[in-house]
Amino acid sequence: MTGIDDLPIRDELRGKSPYGAPQLDVPVRLNTNENPYPLPEPLVARIAERVAEAARNLNRYPDRDAVELRTGLARYLSRTAGLEVGVAQVWAANGSNEVLQQLLQTFGGPGRTAMGFEPSYSMHALISRGTGTGWISGPRNADFTIDVDAARKAIAEHRPDVVFITSPNNPTGTAVGAETVLALHDAAQDARADTAGALVVVDEAYGEFSHRPSLLPLIEGRPRLVLSRTMSKAFGAAGLRLGYLAADPAVVDAVQLVRLPYHLSAVTQATALAALEHTDTLLGYVEALKAERDRLVGELRTIGCEVTDSDANFVQFGRFEDAHAAWRGLLDRGVLVRDNGVPGWLRVTAGTPAENDAFLDAVRELMKETSA
Amino acid sequence: MTGIDDLPIRDELRGKSPYGAPQLDVPVRLNTNENPYPLPEPLVARIAERVAEAARNLNRYPDRDAVELRTGLARYLSRTAGLEVGVAQVWAANGSNEVLQQLLQTFGGPGRTAMGFEPSYSMHALISRGTGTGWISGPRNADFTIDVDAARKAIAEHRPDVVFITSPNNPTGTAVGAETVLALHDAAQDARADTAGALVVVDEAYGEFSHRPSLLPLIEGRPRLVLSRTMSKAFGAAGLRLGYLAADPAVVDAVQLVRLPYHLSAVTQATALAALEHTDTLLGYVEALKAERDRLVGELRTIGCEVTDSDANFVQFGRFEDAHAAWRGLLDRGVLVRDNGVPGWLRVTAGTPAENDAFLDAVRELMKETSA
Repeated sequence: MTGIDDLPIRDELRGKSPYGAPQLDVPVRLNTNENPYPLPEPLVARIAERVAEAARNLNRYPDRDAVELRTGLARYLSRTAGLEVGVAQVWAANGSNEVLQQLLQTFGGPGRTAMGFEPSYSMHALISRGTGTGWISGPRNADFTIDVDAARKAIAEHRPDVVFITSPNNPTGTAVGAETVLALHDAAQDARADTAGALVVVDEAYGEFSHRPSLLPLIEGRPRLVLSRTMSKAFGAAGLRLGYLAADPAVVDAVQLVRLPYHLSAVTQATALAALEHTDTLLGYVEALKAERDRLVGELRTIGCEVTDSDANFVQFGRFEDAHAAWRGLLDRGVLVRDNGVPGWLRVTAGTPAENDAFLDAVRELMKETSA
Repeated sequence: MTGIDDLPIRDELRGKSPYGAPQLDVPVRLNTNENPYPLPEPLVARIAERVAEAARNLNRYPDRDAVELRTGLARYLSRTAGLEVGVAQVWAANGSNEVLQQLLQTFGGPGRTAMGFEPSYSMHALISRGTGTGWISGPRNADFTIDVDAARKAIAEHRPDVVFITSPNNPTGTAVGAETVLALHDAAQDARADTAGALVVVDEAYGEFSHRPSLLPLIEGRPRLVLSRTMSKAFGAAGLRLGYLAADPAVVDAVQLVRLPYHLSAVTQATALAALEHTDTLLGYVEALKAERDRLVGELRTIGCEVTDSDANFVQFGRFEDAHAAWRGLLDRGVLVRDNGVPGWLRVTAGTPAENDAFLDAVRELMKETSA
């Protein structure tokens, strides 16, 4: 039988495994930061209606520029994120992963580097590698905030072409202040004053869950600052794979040089447009999840866990001498959380109240057992 | 205002334009090889049904490995393409463009090269460049068939890591025989005997329209031979963006090292599954289009055009002293065809009988005008 290693794959892929959380069938799955609330039935019906309409024209290629969808996303951002943005400032793709891949193909790539402050969303490093972009791991404080001075120093030393700032940060839940983003943005421009500057990507995949306002207004007057978003979390549509960015129109023009033509299917565009029609209902679920997230933080602290302040729909908790053993202990109790490889810490997604209760019970048992 | 050139984009992207045919609003659009037949209403209804079902679970990530869909595609290939294939031999992505991009990320990339025999599908070169893979343009005969000896020589000289063979070829319509594929496959393995061989990608996007059987059976016993397909043409689903490949299971394992996790949305998977349920109806349209394609070839020759033998749902015709002027002349008559930049030639998609009649009338007028 032929194995991968018998094939002429790239050397750097040899011995690697595909990225992805284990998909295990357990009663309480709180491991991939999914929204626990199914779409309401009126939205399901509207999706069926809009997709049927799109299907009648499915023999034709989709709108290559997804103008109606980008207009809807621009309207949503204008309404909720503190800056009036237009369709020319918005771009969409199959999940924010594809948005980030297109940005790295345009602004990163062979001979260039990207930097992120780790631990953070591990796809930043993986997509960098996948596009031939060198990866530089920048520092964080012990409490998982970004040390601005240390970060500035790292930027000045390594002169990255692309800088990732994740806020709220995954897997820690930590929000990043506007002043930090501005300091790193300016440092990145200074470090690459020799060329046309550096691209700074603010990944706000969990932005709607934050106690703080969106960082979107920072793109104004900063054509090298990009905000990336997703419908996977706040819109409860992880299955839809719809990510988007807001930036200067020149950035939107630039990614079109690398996007695969007709990358966004007509059914994806139709489904996303239906979901945008139900924004108010979906944002109501976000409020419920924020309350549950805050409850998780409080109760975990009462139980005796250390908990990182969270602005996301998940909570980082610990500290365990052996985080993987703790992960296994929770799994044995029917609760799947995520071991992101941060020593001593685990991450739990805010689920429904019942799911969160089951999780908290499992932690209580685990803590008793450990201290017994 | 900021322009693209003020941004730190990659040097090789400077001055480039996004790929894509002009999207013009004219009565008869025969320029992008779309299937002119809308999906039948029972299929539209089934898509709405399956998508609604998927939408009820849209808050969850889609099946990352798209097992049900790949099983359906494997069944379709087994039934129609002359080889029994299993789910482990099939992979799917957002359009065959994404399939090819994943193959190039895995088997091409920086420091490696890909070769195709031009003129051919121009995305092969573009996706190669987009993944940092060097591009080598291989030769064709004046009649657009592949000169096996010349091709073998080019392979031996340039030692590409990836070889593209498009059959039927786009934009010429030319089918490639199994013996040619085998000769080039073996030459590519010989040329890279120093490493683990070379990947040979047979792009059969228009395979269902061919007079010849599929080249699929050639993958048997050849783990470095990949067949790529799409639902855009034969399934009349260009708007769906569903491409797939069949190959040794090791190739399917290998592309999973670079695929973005959850790349294929739940709505895409649901829609494609619905379309597969209606395979027989859709293949009926393919038969009608083959007849129309053959009629176009015959009538164009009667009119006095040169026509390349076609095994696809389009026809290459000429020869014009100024192909772009001829393209414009047809456009002025309300018929949009494609100028692929092959000197002297244009490409027309087989449309409905009425569309083809309108096209043929326009050509007759144009020929009269030119010879007057």
